[in-house]
Amino acid sequence: MEKRAVVLSSGGLDSTTVMAIARREGFAIHSLSFDYGQRHRFEIDAARRVAAAYSAAAHVVLTIDLRQFGGSALTSDTPVPKPAGADGIGLGIPVTYVPARNTIFLSFALAWAETLQAGDIFIGVNAMDYSGYPDCRPEYLAAFQRMADLATRAGVEDRPIAIHAPLIRMTKAEIIRRGMELGVDFGLTHSCYDPSPTGVACGRCESCLLRRRGFREAGAADPIPYQIDTTA
Amino acid sequence: MEKRAVVLSSGGLDSTTVMAIARREGFAIHSLSFDYGQRHRFEIDAARRVAAAYSAAAHVVLTIDLRQFGGSALTSDTPVPKPAGADGIGLGIPVTYVPARNTIFLSFALAWAETLQAGDIFIGVNAMDYSGYPDCRPEYLAAFQRMADLATRAGVEDRPIAIHAPLIRMTKAEIIRRGMELGVDFGLTHSCYDPSPTGVACGRCESCLLRRRGFREAGAADPIPYQIDTTA
Repeated sequence: MEKRAVVLSSGGLDSTTVMAIARREGFAIHSLSFDYGQRHRFEIDAARRVAAAYSAAAHVVLTIDLRQFGGSALTSDTPVPKPAGADGIGLGIPVTYVPARNTIFLSFALAWAETLQAGDIFIGVNAMDYSGYPDCRPEYLAAFQRMADLATRAGVEDRPIAIHAPLIRMTKAEIIRRGMELGVDFGLTHSCYDPSPTGVACGRCESCLLRRRGFREAGAADPIPYQIDTTA
Repeated sequence: MEKRAVVLSSGGLDSTTVMAIARREGFAIHSLSFDYGQRHRFEIDAARRVAAAYSAAAHVVLTIDLRQFGGSALTSDTPVPKPAGADGIGLGIPVTYVPARNTIFLSFALAWAETLQAGDIFIGVNAMDYSGYPDCRPEYLAAFQRMADLATRAGVEDRPIAIHAPLIRMTKAEIIRRGMELGVDFGLTHSCYDPSPTGVACGRCESCLLRRRGFREAGAADPIPYQIDTTA
């Protein structure tokens, strides 16, 4: 039997590159996405396309209504911030922070991995370009791993479930280059926090700015369309 | 402003006693329950009654479909085991184990606490009567606390959210006595894994057996009805 991995997938370029890495390492992909009341629901469509592209053995989209808690621009009605330019990428914890989001996502991945008897979880977190999010840091992931080892039957029985974050210390440009080496079709991916009604990226939110800067630094063309002229 | 706590509530006697403890300590209760495809959906009705009894500032019931993962008697169609008698309470990890359940529940509690700017979470886990569940052990909770301190804006800003498990080292009889001291109406609570269609406890599943033994050892009468004669 092929070894199994649960891969957290947002349909973005980071998690898609991670899925390509897991596939290259020989894992059967069990893709896990969340519909958590985010504005950018097009990411779920992207996650489905990506799971299909990597012949995922399964793709589960869990609906969790974080809006019942309120508290973030990504899940409420406050406007998504638009920095003035590519240099306007914020410092500190951004207002788009969703409390405990990676903890919730990894917890579900852990539950599914244990059910599948999968020994591996892959997550596309990145401490370089998202240093404002506390739950994207290596020390956070190490603490989650220790907790997971104690939380699960697998951990207790000395078959701990390993959490892999292969992008954690990579820049966006390095991620894009690694994805290109692995043949990732970035045209399938979605990054924008505030797309048009038909899903076209705004080009101006923090996520679009990071993506555009990453492609520029990687010396590559971003295959997705934007609402604005990005060649200027 | 009254200090706020998130209290995980199953509508059972443990979490209800914990809610009474939190209320006695002066917290405004933010009760959090889950509809996770469990058989015992009557526990959600019980959790609503209990939240009302403790004048909860809010009661959120989150729906999460763990059945998409399969894997436990509590969320699938395999029969709930009925031990032969009160001495039949199992050793080892029971088949009613739900993978990563407390990790998922605590992760959502953490998200809500951070959104509310609440500094405290209460959970009714118990290592004495449920030693078969890895995620009911003190070392698990300590690891979750360390992870939570790194996961959240509150933790990063040195206002860590404290996770309290006041029952962790108590027997069921001790919990019942503590609840009685605090005036808990155990008639509001629901424990059975396999109730009748109208919600009457079976009296024979592991959860009923633990509850009945607890009341017997506490020298108290259990106010809820059972499908079987429990006076024999």
